[in-house]
Amino acid sequence: MERNRPQILITNDDGYAAKGLRKLVTLMRTLGDVTLISTDEVMSAKSHSCTIRERIYVRLVHEEEGFKEYRCNGTPVDCVKLGYQKLMPTPPDLVVSGINHGMNAATTVVYSGTIGAVIEACMNDLNAIGYSLFSLDPDADFDHLDTFILEITKKVLKEGLPKGVCLNVNFPKRSEEPIKGIKVCRQAACRWVEYFNDHFDEKGVQYYDLEGTFESDDVMPDTDLWALQNNYISVVPTCFDWTAHSQIVPMKEFEQISIKP
Amino acid sequence: MERNRPQILITNDDGYAAKGLRKLVTLMRTLGDVTLISTDEVMSAKSHSCTIRERIYVRLVHEEEGFKEYRCNGTPVDCVKLGYQKLMPTPPDLVVSGINHGMNAATTVVYSGTIGAVIEACMNDLNAIGYSLFSLDPDADFDHLDTFILEITKKVLKEGLPKGVCLNVNFPKRSEEPIKGIKVCRQAACRWVEYFNDHFDEKGVQYYDLEGTFESDDVMPDTDLWALQNNYISVVPTCFDWTAHSQIVPMKEFEQISIKP
Repeated sequence: MERNRPQILITNDDGYAAKGLRKLVTLMRTLGDVTLISTDEVMSAKSHSCTIRERIYVRLVHEEEGFKEYRCNGTPVDCVKLGYQKLMPTPPDLVVSGINHGMNAATTVVYSGTIGAVIEACMNDLNAIGYSLFSLDPDADFDHLDTFILEITKKVLKEGLPKGVCLNVNFPKRSEEPIKGIKVCRQAACRWVEYFNDHFDEKGVQYYDLEGTFESDDVMPDTDLWALQNNYISVVPTCFDWTAHSQIVPMKEFEQISIKP
Repeated sequence: MERNRPQILITNDDGYAAKGLRKLVTLMRTLGDVTLISTDEVMSAKSHSCTIRERIYVRLVHEEEGFKEYRCNGTPVDCVKLGYQKLMPTPPDLVVSGINHGMNAATTVVYSGTIGAVIEACMNDLNAIGYSLFSLDPDADFDHLDTFILEITKKVLKEGLPKGVCLNVNFPKRSEEPIKGIKVCRQAACRWVEYFNDHFDEKGVQYYDLEGTFESDDVMPDTDLWALQNNYISVVPTCFDWTAHSQIVPMKEFEQISIKP
């Protein structure tokens, strides 16, 4: 083993078999030694959940020069914790999550297991990048992304990221026109307009399932949504300080509430 | 039914039987009509996860004047979605989550199901508050909080919160000294120092469970941790824009990456 090769931890939220994950492994193996820790189940919409009340089982399923592959019954956040704490001999130089089948731009980051893993790494002072493609197709074409992913990753490996900051990178779907370039931008506001469908199960008991469509009217040129809609790659520097800093001073009036015991 | 009473949706992440949840119901019923939607299971550390691949079952378990109680097999985020979209005749005037057994200050918000529910409400333009007590004791004493919770809630019901902002309120554990007051503050940085314990199950297969301790050296007087450690209530205005805005300009150099097709 070349001791100087970067140590890269990969995970995702689409489960171990996803095409986007396999593409990411292929790309990252050209840059360093890869430890892949993925999940038995699809973990979309699992956000930052982690396993604190159940047993976590991990299996080493493949090993060769410069590559180890594990699977577990946990979440993407569990995969990161397992990697840097238990399975890798030293903490990774970089954690990479994806390539997600489906975009994680705008406020969809809040639900994303892919981004949960990235933020978990960032909270533990590890460089971390999430890659997502604006296509839910399980057989989506990722080949137009290769060089961009390699260049972005090389830059982060070389220079590192500021403490408390990770990268949320989203790619436009493949189109006739080549990708125009990269935009460093802010997370757009959006919402899911959702509804619950009514059903009755085999025993006649009512249940629901959730369907929704994505809506946003925040498509200013400084947003990730604008970038994607205009065939740019969006790079959003992302943090886990959720304080609405501009509201601290206006809300100081809450401090006037006092109670005589 | 008094048509002018505020409509309040309550949920939590400690499950339907938690003492803190029952205390919150009692308090909120003095302020409005309450719809309680809680979960069959404990949902701590479920963060913002929601149910998109399984059936959601909901039962109305109790109904009386000004109060309806539902339980479901989902997550706290599902409870909020169910409430405003399906179970309540009109969207609630306020969503309240808690009272959590355990603090949700500093970066623990990232893991919290309690705060997941609050952010979900906020993303859908509903006023929302999360209440948490700095004690994991299932039989914790909540009585010293009554008037503070009522006054904070009344202020939000009366004045509303700015769009895109919700409140994360944490209370110090009961002590000899009365609570000193309220501090409006920022989320402190922190991390969990964790380790996986090795075990072997009944069949001799190895598994792990996760243990951790909370650590922070960010206890400046403008943080929620400082407030709690000094017997103040912390109120953090919280948002779901995770962009590290100060990093957008420095990171513009990523835009220099370009690929000739």
